[in-house]
Amino acid sequence: MNLNDLINQVSSWLKGTGPHSDIVISSRIRLARNLDKTPFPHWAKKNDAEQVLVTTKAAFERTAELKSAVFLRLEELDNIDKQFLVERHLMSNEHAVRSNQKALCVTPREDVAIMVNEEDHLRIQVMESGFDLDKTWDVINSIDDQLSGFLSYAFSREWGYLTACPTNTGTGMRGSVMLHLPALVMSRQINKVLEAIAKLSFTTRGLYGEGTQASGNFFQISNQVSLGLREEEILGNIKGVIGQIIEQEQKAREVLLAEHREMLEDRIWRSYGTLKNAHIISSGETVELLSMLRLGNDLGLVENMERGLINELFILTQPAHLQKLENKKLSANERDIKRAQIIRERLKV
Amino acid sequence: MNLNDLINQVSSWLKGTGPHSDIVISSRIRLARNLDKTPFPHWAKKNDAEQVLVTTKAAFERTAELKSAVFLRLEELDNIDKQFLVERHLMSNEHAVRSNQKALCVTPREDVAIMVNEEDHLRIQVMESGFDLDKTWDVINSIDDQLSGFLSYAFSREWGYLTACPTNTGTGMRGSVMLHLPALVMSRQINKVLEAIAKLSFTTRGLYGEGTQASGNFFQISNQVSLGLREEEILGNIKGVIGQIIEQEQKAREVLLAEHREMLEDRIWRSYGTLKNAHIISSGETVELLSMLRLGNDLGLVENMERGLINELFILTQPAHLQKLENKKLSANERDIKRAQIIRERLKV
Repeated sequence: MNLNDLINQVSSWLKGTGPHSDIVISSRIRLARNLDKTPFPHWAKKNDAEQVLVTTKAAFERTAELKSAVFLRLEELDNIDKQFLVERHLMSNEHAVRSNQKALCVTPREDVAIMVNEEDHLRIQVMESGFDLDKTWDVINSIDDQLSGFLSYAFSREWGYLTACPTNTGTGMRGSVMLHLPALVMSRQINKVLEAIAKLSFTTRGLYGEGTQASGNFFQISNQVSLGLREEEILGNIKGVIGQIIEQEQKAREVLLAEHREMLEDRIWRSYGTLKNAHIISSGETVELLSMLRLGNDLGLVENMERGLINELFILTQPAHLQKLENKKLSANERDIKRAQIIRERLKV
Repeated sequence: MNLNDLINQVSSWLKGTGPHSDIVISSRIRLARNLDKTPFPHWAKKNDAEQVLVTTKAAFERTAELKSAVFLRLEELDNIDKQFLVERHLMSNEHAVRSNQKALCVTPREDVAIMVNEEDHLRIQVMESGFDLDKTWDVINSIDDQLSGFLSYAFSREWGYLTACPTNTGTGMRGSVMLHLPALVMSRQINKVLEAIAKLSFTTRGLYGEGTQASGNFFQISNQVSLGLREEEILGNIKGVIGQIIEQEQKAREVLLAEHREMLEDRIWRSYGTLKNAHIISSGETVELLSMLRLGNDLGLVENMERGLINELFILTQPAHLQKLENKKLSANERDIKRAQIIRERLKV
């Protein structure tokens, strides 16, 4: 597997399949793990960090789920490739920016991605399409079990897994679910929903991860507390909260269809028409319009469309993806033209 | 011929044919004429006005160009039918509002329309597609010649034709040309052009006649002076001025294509996409988007489209037309939905 192969495939977590995939894009769990008797990455000297790369790479090679994974040293990648991996949700922006003695291990399906020497020695991520935290948990738990056999984790009987930032200590786990909530946004109920879950210690982020604003009606909701509860309890809490949000979105969609069908069809079809015809389009507008198209598809108003195709366009239309497709650096204006071209080609009936 | 037949046809002046029809929608000449020894309509008693209807109807029946014309007494029409005739540019709004002892004579091709008892006893209008004031003049001159043989016109050797409003006295003639000037608008040269022609005593109106704003980049330009010059001189002046505006618009289109092609294609195709997909659309937005589609068609950027179809949509999407198509009264919101439906149907490839 080669980095350049990724652009020709849809990440497994973006297929648009799995439970409640009309509302839930993907389920994600990540575990923060550190090696015993080794300074955390921010404080580590070059030799220590280098040793972490060697040790973890060897452990990955012995782990069943990572057999066909690639191990990418970030110093060897150019900026577009690094941004490309960020856009595919395979690593954080921070990981791309300072890349000395950092690595990314990623499977061909892109369901597993492990950052080495980010804030912690290991940030293990597993993503699945749809609302399926159980399956996600099974996969990451199996990987974690095997790795713990090959590596000596920093672990305290009192505190649990030790991490660079205390907020991650304990389980080191964060579960998050990416939701598409256009009906709650259109019916202006979304703020009430987000305020309620904030009180339950959940955080909300945008489509493109930490520090990004919610856009195109996408909301990534995750647990804030990782200490004092067992993993299964944390996941149970997330499932309960997300289940309620899904119900509220479903009800809001029904009300929109029953009471504002013409307005809804107008917005959806106009979005589709613009996507199919624009010759210059920004990424912000693209996300908004794709969100409407996805809703139209999920409600059965727009037919003969694969949900996976719409999902893929969210990723494919981002700056580094466009530049990899064109195989050269593009200015912002050139990207807006290329983006419109890609969308027209993919949506051509 | 029946009034209801008109909705199923494109008015001859809207066919999108004739000289310079990429920029000039239509050429129009109207003559104001009054009967000798008869009070002007605003001052006429009912019997006088009734006599004018009888006398002129008889004269029309003897005129070659009016052989198959219908003579519509406006009292016999309902408000939607009257508004329908206004929307087709066959009579003025004023003529529709106060309709006692008023009539409209219109040919099946809709190239000739004569208002009886509007501001003057006769307002004779001839319209042709494209930039063709000579043909228009030939037709209206022939009609006027014949009518002057059957009717006794109010005419003074010193002043020429006498009219209710002194600004029309003399030739009683107004020539006007409907222009589509999107490139002059987009390149912000239009105000300079309109100021220049205002100094030459020309007036500018919108797509829908007197009192309407220019919208969708349409400008109806006509002479203000009708006294002191012969008809041929007035028409010569109009032709000279319009010819220059056509050249400026052509040049502006070339510059746009050469220097801003992507921006232009983006605007045109987005407009087309919205027209083909909207489910609710106002008349204002419709005119703006159709203007862009017409430009795209005229520049060869949008292919396989009849200019006549685009022209027809400007007329067909107006309120009374929508209500005649639906055969019932429609609220503003219902019209916006019906308008979008008609446009989608007509633009379906």
